[in-house]
Amino acid sequence: MDFAYTPKMIEWRDRLTAFVNEHVVPAEPRFREEIQANREKGHAWDGSHEVMDGLKAAAKKAGLWNMFLPASQNGAGLTNLEYAPLCEIMGRYPLTGEAMNCSAPDTGNMEVLERYGTPELKERWLKPLLAGEIRSGFAMTEPDVASSDATQIRSRIDRDGDHYVINGRKWWTSGAPDERCKVLIFMGRTDMEGEDTDTYRQQSMIVVPMDTPGVKVERVLTVFGYDHAPHGHAEVSFTNVRVPKENLLLGEGRGFEIAQGRLGPGRIHHCMRLIGMAERALELMCRRALVRKPFGRLLSDQGVTRERIAESRILIDQARWLTLNAAYMMDTVGNKEARKEIAMIKVAAPNMACQVIDWAMQVHGGAGVSQDFPLADAYAKARTIRFADGPDEVHRNQIAKLELAQYLKV
Amino acid sequence: MDFAYTPKMIEWRDRLTAFVNEHVVPAEPRFREEIQANREKGHAWDGSHEVMDGLKAAAKKAGLWNMFLPASQNGAGLTNLEYAPLCEIMGRYPLTGEAMNCSAPDTGNMEVLERYGTPELKERWLKPLLAGEIRSGFAMTEPDVASSDATQIRSRIDRDGDHYVINGRKWWTSGAPDERCKVLIFMGRTDMEGEDTDTYRQQSMIVVPMDTPGVKVERVLTVFGYDHAPHGHAEVSFTNVRVPKENLLLGEGRGFEIAQGRLGPGRIHHCMRLIGMAERALELMCRRALVRKPFGRLLSDQGVTRERIAESRILIDQARWLTLNAAYMMDTVGNKEARKEIAMIKVAAPNMACQVIDWAMQVHGGAGVSQDFPLADAYAKARTIRFADGPDEVHRNQIAKLELAQYLKV
Amino acid sequence: MDFAYTPKMIEWRDRLTAFVNEHVVPAEPRFREEIQANREKGHAWDGSHEVMDGLKAAAKKAGLWNMFLPASQNGAGLTNLEYAPLCEIMGRYPLTGEAMNCSAPDTGNMEVLERYGTPELKERWLKPLLAGEIRSGFAMTEPDVASSDATQIRSRIDRDGDHYVINGRKWWTSGAPDERCKVLIFMGRTDMEGEDTDTYRQQSMIVVPMDTPGVKVERVLTVFGYDHAPHGHAEVSFTNVRVPKENLLLGEGRGFEIAQGRLGPGRIHHCMRLIGMAERALELMCRRALVRKPFGRLLSDQGVTRERIAESRILIDQARWLTLNAAYMMDTVGNKEARKEIAMIKVAAPNMACQVIDWAMQVHGGAGVSQDFPLADAYAKARTIRFADGPDEVHRNQIAKLELAQYLKV
Amino acid sequence: MDFAYTPKMIEWRDRLTAFVNEHVVPAEPRFREEIQANREKGHAWDGSHEVMDGLKAAAKKAGLWNMFLPASQNGAGLTNLEYAPLCEIMGRYPLTGEAMNCSAPDTGNMEVLERYGTPELKERWLKPLLAGEIRSGFAMTEPDVASSDATQIRSRIDRDGDHYVINGRKWWTSGAPDERCKVLIFMGRTDMEGEDTDTYRQQSMIVVPMDTPGVKVERVLTVFGYDHAPHGHAEVSFTNVRVPKENLLLGEGRGFEIAQGRLGPGRIHHCMRLIGMAERALELMCRRALVRKPFGRLLSDQGVTRERIAESRILIDQARWLTLNAAYMMDTVGNKEARKEIAMIKVAAPNMACQVIDWAMQVHGGAGVSQDFPLADAYAKARTIRFADGPDEVHRNQIAKLELAQYLKV
Repeated sequence: MDFAYTPKMIEWRDRLTAFVNEHVVPAEPRFREEIQANREKGHAWDGSHEVMDGLKAAAKKAGLWNMFLPASQNGAGLTNLEYAPLCEIMGRYPLTGEAMNCSAPDTGNMEVLERYGTPELKERWLKPLLAGEIRSGFAMTEPDVASSDATQIRSRIDRDGDHYVINGRKWWTSGAPDERCKVLIFMGRTDMEGEDTDTYRQQSMIVVPMDTPGVKVERVLTVFGYDHAPHGHAEVSFTNVRVPKENLLLGEGRGFEIAQGRLGPGRIHHCMRLIGMAERALELMCRRALVRKPFGRLLSDQGVTRERIAESRILIDQARWLTLNAAYMMDTVGNKEARKEIAMIKVAAPNMACQVIDWAMQVHGGAGVSQDFPLADAYAKARTIRFADGPDEVHRNQIAKLELAQYLKV
Repeated sequence: MDFAYTPKMIEWRDRLTAFVNEHVVPAEPRFREEIQANREKGHAWDGSHEVMDGLKAAAKKAGLWNMFLPASQNGAGLTNLEYAPLCEIMGRYPLTGEAMNCSAPDTGNMEVLERYGTPELKERWLKPLLAGEIRSGFAMTEPDVASSDATQIRSRIDRDGDHYVINGRKWWTSGAPDERCKVLIFMGRTDMEGEDTDTYRQQSMIVVPMDTPGVKVERVLTVFGYDHAPHGHAEVSFTNVRVPKENLLLGEGRGFEIAQGRLGPGRIHHCMRLIGMAERALELMCRRALVRKPFGRLLSDQGVTRERIAESRILIDQARWLTLNAAYMMDTVGNKEARKEIAMIKVAAPNMACQVIDWAMQVHGGAGVSQDFPLADAYAKARTIRFADGPDEVHRNQIAKLELAQYLKV
Repeated sequence: MDFAYTPKMIEWRDRLTAFVNEHVVPAEPRFREEIQANREKGHAWDGSHEVMDGLKAAAKKAGLWNMFLPASQNGAGLTNLEYAPLCEIMGRYPLTGEAMNCSAPDTGNMEVLERYGTPELKERWLKPLLAGEIRSGFAMTEPDVASSDATQIRSRIDRDGDHYVINGRKWWTSGAPDERCKVLIFMGRTDMEGEDTDTYRQQSMIVVPMDTPGVKVERVLTVFGYDHAPHGHAEVSFTNVRVPKENLLLGEGRGFEIAQGRLGPGRIHHCMRLIGMAERALELMCRRALVRKPFGRLLSDQGVTRERIAESRILIDQARWLTLNAAYMMDTVGNKEARKEIAMIKVAAPNMACQVIDWAMQVHGGAGVSQDFPLADAYAKARTIRFADGPDEVHRNQIAKLELAQYLKV
Repeated sequence: MDFAYTPKMIEWRDRLTAFVNEHVVPAEPRFREEIQANREKGHAWDGSHEVMDGLKAAAKKAGLWNMFLPASQNGAGLTNLEYAPLCEIMGRYPLTGEAMNCSAPDTGNMEVLERYGTPELKERWLKPLLAGEIRSGFAMTEPDVASSDATQIRSRIDRDGDHYVINGRKWWTSGAPDERCKVLIFMGRTDMEGEDTDTYRQQSMIVVPMDTPGVKVERVLTVFGYDHAPHGHAEVSFTNVRVPKENLLLGEGRGFEIAQGRLGPGRIHHCMRLIGMAERALELMCRRALVRKPFGRLLSDQGVTRERIAESRILIDQARWLTLNAAYMMDTVGNKEARKEIAMIKVAAPNMACQVIDWAMQVHGGAGVSQDFPLADAYAKARTIRFADGPDEVHRNQIAKLELAQYLKV
């Protein structure tokens, strides 16, 4: 019905919606119970995965598997624009992504391995990842430097004969606490002396199996009090971690090049998920407003609530069009030409989601910040994305430079 | 390049851009001088129209005339979606709309006359309007009632034999002070006793020539301090104004029905013009920031300016997608089905424009609020649209009701 | 130095600051470790309280004990205005309040018991509370009704001979999970049939020992993801809970009267604590900005950061003056006359704190939402206070009614 | 009643309120008519001043004259804190300031002349200014440089024997179009070569009679369409304007020193006037909301209106406390020590006023932007003060630097 949705997009959307209604929605409470039970037994990170394993089986059977891979025999042949509406559904029902093997950071890692991995790396890591048998992490952010500027990364990747030796400390390595996480893609400096004067060519990416000696998950980081088990985020130390030289991807100094390639699609995914989260918050806000009646008047009949519902609808729809256009641009002119559009959604979508979820929480009162609704958790996630993968400020700066550049030429 | 622009849209946009660059841009300073000279001679409302007449001739010659008419032999066969980008250009260069005979309230009036006028009314008023020889006004808002609720209109249209007799007081009748304005479409009550219990069926619309005895332009209203000559906005009194009964359009009690029909396209036009105004403000903001250098650092190199430029780009693009989708919806499912989308743009676009223009003013300092830049005038206009044709609050209320309704059914 | 601080206020402020610097600041990391160790041992709610017990002893020795009691032999003889700056320090260093036996909900409960309790209730509960030997809870909010409108409370308090029998379900009963919490003040309906047509006279307050049969802590509620051990918030069920009739405070139907009396001072305390929390966030924001240097430029030298620091300073100072004035008004004209001022701070302070803390988080990136800084926890608390004890919307409504009332008289 | 108002402040406030109610309120419509009549006769700038002259006479008689002078035999012996509440009333009823000879820029000019003028300058200019017989202007801002950074001023003041010769172009010289304006204080460069490396010591101030050959009022600048007759703002050119060397105030290179002295009190005055303007807007908002009833429900009963009324009350009161504290600080520790507090109010008050007035306009609809209410004019003024005398951004930058400085020391 809406002007940018092709029949193919609508078909996939409907197919996934059917799957979600049949499988994911009923699984949500069971999943929460399973995780909570694991946590109480002290097995938050290595407990049962019964519910998720069941969902994965169902998704595979339904042919909903690895759709994130755009141009690959392993994927579904969807463009970014076509895949985007599916991400919105994954954001609305958070179990959906992993159920279909479409969740970060595995998606980015699989793309990188498929594109740059040796046949051995593919066999060893890409294959089980594509099969959903293991999970993976991405170790980039460091506690000691301003993560908004990745040129400041200090972890070392030193060549030593046929190996690279890795030393450093990472944090916010999502998935690392999960016992299913078997491999990391690690970013660090190969050019410690800065021989390449281009600071964007001093870093490299390398594949590090979790069981390599010297890799240590130091602690789990909480996000607004949440541990996000069973996946979670960890601080991980690397002490003389030795891996074969073939594990280095694409070549020394090409870490940023790889990072750029994964960023674009990742941002589309993130932003569409945020839109889905916001849609769910808006639905909850409406449903709550229709039953709560303080001072003799339903919240849904009160002007203040209505203002927020209307503004939420406007904010969500605006963010969606912006994101779909960015996806379309990526598909048609490429990541580089679309960098302004990609930066724009990275600013707009998380801020929108924080606002909508915040209003939804306010309508729920105490229930809204408690474990009884997914709102506070969604807020914590949306808030985090306002700086993860580059804070708003860095993206706005880039947008403005591109905007100003038009008038420099003239 | 962008995902919702068809080749036809791009072709028309480029054609109009060429016209604007050749004719409108150079005419802007000459127009301002002509108007100011007229004002100083006491002929603000009945002075020379040399510059505009020249532009009109050029536009006619270029085949850029009456494109607003969607499905009419008199128009250009453009859908709302196709016409929308042209409105953006008209907003950016305000003389463009009148130059092409595409400016409010004439556009709405011509549509109404074409659809509902008798052959005599068409010959007498539609023909010269289509030819751009006269202008027209729309008399709806009244000073004594809350204009957000048009059911409160109190002006009377009483049947008296073969005539209707009109009494009442209107204001914000745009164009009425202009000597070229020869005819009004007037909305008033035909059902004073409220026999029809549907309050939306008590009002009617009627054609009133300006020279009918009893029509008096009482005074010009200023917007902030602007008189907006030579067009302007007036308070107009109607005292025993007698017109033939054939001047009543469509039938007694059908005023709202006519109003609804003109509202949808009018809102697309307004919103796209606001987007154009905001684009111009952003351009001015960038250009100014690139030359002003307080405390040794260009404004364009300062983070605060960059934040605002980036946010402006995001806000503008979001509003544009929202508006284009509303236009597409109107074209495909009709005004009624698209009423939520139309209400959404009516909220989003004026607020966006106010914000962007305000930031642009701040970068300009004193120059920004003065006559040296179009910013303060643009702000005054954008601010006015936040309540004209229904205030934000009424539209948000309607959006929320439609949003909530989805969950009532379930 | 500032115009509203008397020498007495400054003396107390300095005295408490000295205590905090000597005792509280060094205790903070030890407290966190103790709590975390307790939690890991499964003793989150009944573990060691070594650090806090030490702080309490030190505070008692320093004569910093029970200062919240305004006009009582047990207190320090401080007015609300004089006590307010101490609350700011307690907000900045959260252990301080409990250390001095000045933390909610005990403060309100002690005031209520002192004012309305029988000698027996005072001996049994007030005495150990004043001594800091036990803690207490306040059971008012219910999960099934809109908590913003306390007239909707449904829990029953039924008279049965010399006893009252209590049935109902409460949540957000702060402190109830804490093993040290020995008594609750409970609000419920005594007038189930609504015989008193004044809906504000159908509720009563009653003292309920935690070990009374029928009182059951059902579960701990999380705030965002925090359990807030060892204090926490619980859902508590009451099933045929039987207490002596003397436990009913002040008389049947006088629950709101008691609630009103405790609300005013409680809001001053809350708001000043929020101001202290915001001050700490601002300090952290400044310190972080002075050491992080993305893209070659300290955050503290970047305009965007500076804007936020400046706005934070303005917002904090404005909220402080508003709150001090409200305290002064309470002291001089009483709670009732000062109700507009009290409502105003209840809106202004939590919103201010959320904004300032949010900016501080953004400067910290991932660290800001993690357990390494107190920011995300502070945000969760400040956000909660936006609806606890009445949401913003209810207070704004009351302020507006009082503001409008001035013009009704004229 | 409020905690910072001394009996003296209350006495003066009540005295001025009585004067306003008796004289100013009834004069407002007559003043508007007189000005409009003058404008229509082509005498906007040199027409009748009957109403204002009458008010001046009444104020003199009431002993309400020149109260702005703090420590002078010519003043009323009021501190900044004591004078501040009077400025609020002047902001609420704009004629009041001039009626009492307390309006900018005369107030600042009189202070400067009293402090730094030679006996001759005092006799010639200060005396008639104190008597309210003439008015004056302050020529500082220039069109060609970023006015936020006054070190960029380029106008020249060259010594030539016993004279200085002035060349340059100023704009936003308030009062210059007014025929009663007889003298300017002019700021320009005496040190063109920048011999003094302190860029804040290259500028000087000098007294320039309006009738000196070479002084030319080039044009009147509008503010959002307003000409602000009969006072107004002008662009003024200075071509070889020759004045006696004694007209130079304080000494060459001391222009900034003089400017600093006048800034502090001026900002208190401006901010308190803005608070008064906002109070009036809030009153109008309430009164309008109590009579307009769209869709069957008074605006004053609608939640959205109430939210805005409540927020307005909070914003206004916060700004007032902040400003009173700044005044108190100036009185007790001096302008320099109070510079953070002064910068804070310069940011907070205009933004607050813009917001409150904007909400008031929205409640008024079309009437709100028209000449029928003082709202749009008030908005234009408040908006202008957001950059006049230094834009928000410069003040926020200064506040942040002072805030950050605390942590540099540690």
